[in-house]
Amino acid sequence: MKMKSAAIIGAGLMGSAMSWPLADNGFEVFLVGSPLDDYIIRSCRDMRFHPSLGRVIPENVIPIECKDAASVIGSAELIVSGVSSYGVDWIAGFLEEHYVPGQKIISITKGIRINASCGIELFPEIIQKHLPMAGGSASVVAAVGGPCIAGELAARRQTSVMFGSHDIELARYFTGVFTTDYYHPIPTDDLMSLELCVALKNAYTVAVGCTAGMLETEEHEDEANAKMHNSAAAIFAQGCMEISRMIGILGGKRSYAAFLPGAGDLYVTSAGGRTMKLGRLLGSGMLYSEARERLHGVTLESVMIISEMAKIIPSLLEKKKAREVEFPLMLALIDCIVNNKKMCLPFEKMFNDKAFV
Amino acid sequence: MKMKSAAIIGAGLMGSAMSWPLADNGFEVFLVGSPLDDYIIRSCRDMRFHPSLGRVIPENVIPIECKDAASVIGSAELIVSGVSSYGVDWIAGFLEEHYVPGQKIISITKGIRINASCGIELFPEIIQKHLPMAGGSASVVAAVGGPCIAGELAARRQTSVMFGSHDIELARYFTGVFTTDYYHPIPTDDLMSLELCVALKNAYTVAVGCTAGMLETEEHEDEANAKMHNSAAAIFAQGCMEISRMIGILGGKRSYAAFLPGAGDLYVTSAGGRTMKLGRLLGSGMLYSEARERLHGVTLESVMIISEMAKIIPSLLEKKKAREVEFPLMLALIDCIVNNKKMCLPFEKMFNDKAFV
Repeated sequence: MKMKSAAIIGAGLMGSAMSWPLADNGFEVFLVGSPLDDYIIRSCRDMRFHPSLGRVIPENVIPIECKDAASVIGSAELIVSGVSSYGVDWIAGFLEEHYVPGQKIISITKGIRINASCGIELFPEIIQKHLPMAGGSASVVAAVGGPCIAGELAARRQTSVMFGSHDIELARYFTGVFTTDYYHPIPTDDLMSLELCVALKNAYTVAVGCTAGMLETEEHEDEANAKMHNSAAAIFAQGCMEISRMIGILGGKRSYAAFLPGAGDLYVTSAGGRTMKLGRLLGSGMLYSEARERLHGVTLESVMIISEMAKIIPSLLEKKKAREVEFPLMLALIDCIVNNKKMCLPFEKMFNDKAFV
Repeated sequence: MKMKSAAIIGAGLMGSAMSWPLADNGFEVFLVGSPLDDYIIRSCRDMRFHPSLGRVIPENVIPIECKDAASVIGSAELIVSGVSSYGVDWIAGFLEEHYVPGQKIISITKGIRINASCGIELFPEIIQKHLPMAGGSASVVAAVGGPCIAGELAARRQTSVMFGSHDIELARYFTGVFTTDYYHPIPTDDLMSLELCVALKNAYTVAVGCTAGMLETEEHEDEANAKMHNSAAAIFAQGCMEISRMIGILGGKRSYAAFLPGAGDLYVTSAGGRTMKLGRLLGSGMLYSEARERLHGVTLESVMIISEMAKIIPSLLEKKKAREVEFPLMLALIDCIVNNKKMCLPFEKMFNDKAFV
């Protein structure tokens, strides 16, 4: 029997890691690099070694350079859109060119976009809009959310995530394809709640990271070596609450904030990485403009989501759909990232009982 | 003007740490040791140094040995009940003897108790029952919940917590007394939701700790040094969900699970300490009976709450108020702690979509 095949577009960490469950489930996996990924693809092809994951790739993964994509994509049953939020327009155009009717797409991209009329666009919807040949209004693009560090998935560590689509059957299809004894996707048709959590958790991780920066800049080491976990936990909880409130305002299920894509994903993102690093720099007193210099070349999806929130929150406040007391942490993040002011964690304003739970 | 005075009963970490905000707010603080705390009180008295906190105590704290308690307690405007869940009966008896009508009490004890008819008793209620002289049914006992490592409070790190009482005015009184520029209590009248979170988070922290134990017992180090954060985050999220469900079943506010006393407190408890250590040992394959030996002398409030859950969950299942698919993690913890079986994290059973959010 001919092997089923899948194409992953974008050979960054998470896109590439998705090849492990696919390969383990018997798929032939075309790992197609974006135009920025040529060195990754060459290493994967010549040495079977993925340089960012630091790991040998599975046997049935076939690395493909972007320029050769056309030759393989048509044969794939499913496509993983594996770019960052900065690559969404590129991948939408790419798929517009290469998509074949009947193919199913799942997007790992984290983020949302606010359009000119202050409406929310989810990335799967943006991609689907570019696929007129997909036919009708049936969803062909699903999304992944939930706590997943790519390197751990590729190490086959126990990982639980959610697959969301407006069409639950599409989510279930992908669940069937990807489930292994270490990778546990759960299907949902609540794409809005899922994507809001996925996006917002990056923003609030910056705030959690700030507490680490505050600790680093204490003048003297504490006599009993106290850390800053209480502050981090308060920020973490305020983040969960603000995610819950924003989901509620935008018509989703607030309970997602205490679930895999909310609290779970915020937890794993706060365990380290570039988003925490940005927070640490800001918490230590650096302006965002300085931190951005320092992190030159690092993809900061947190910055994009905070900038998108800067567009929608004023409008929500104006329409009285939201109140300032409900979002002190996001407003502080916007002041820091968008207005380039020194980060100031609003401990005094958090958990205001006029905005209770 | 004469200083107002407060008495803290129990000179363990958290009880003692509560003296910092009180002292900073101008209280004369009697730090009264339990019968187990004599060495702490002697050190505090002779050297002004708290040996467990590793820190010099504030000027207006007056260390008192348990045998001398009677001489000071009567003059206190408020009392902090500062014992662990294993000391609740002792403190209830102690207060029965020493309480003076008009005094207000706040309890830091974490836990709940299931009585013979499978009803839930909250510790503030247990204490109040022993105070017939308190008069009437008005609450005089409040409780503290939320993410707070004692050593960080004593270092005056930014800390947000909740003060709960059936009587919101009592909670507000304590909020007024304790608020400083680093300690931010928020009043609530939802004592049940608060106390369930406070208790349950200890249980689920054991499960988060198990993932660290699993990592330690991997045969080979991973080629790319992958950790176990995905697994920890999945357990964390499942913990939040089960807390939310249990609160819902018992008539509280489910949203607390994504708030300071739920996700926030679970986050800080999972940052380290004895509960995580127990989890690590169990996750590495040790039986609970062996881990208990290894942790001889360590107070494990997590074990008490898991044992209490072992009493109530079968009854909830039988009455069809709960379903097994809703609590796979707690059932695994019960199997491990109460039935002394090897810990087995139920990744396959978690986030079952028949028990969704």
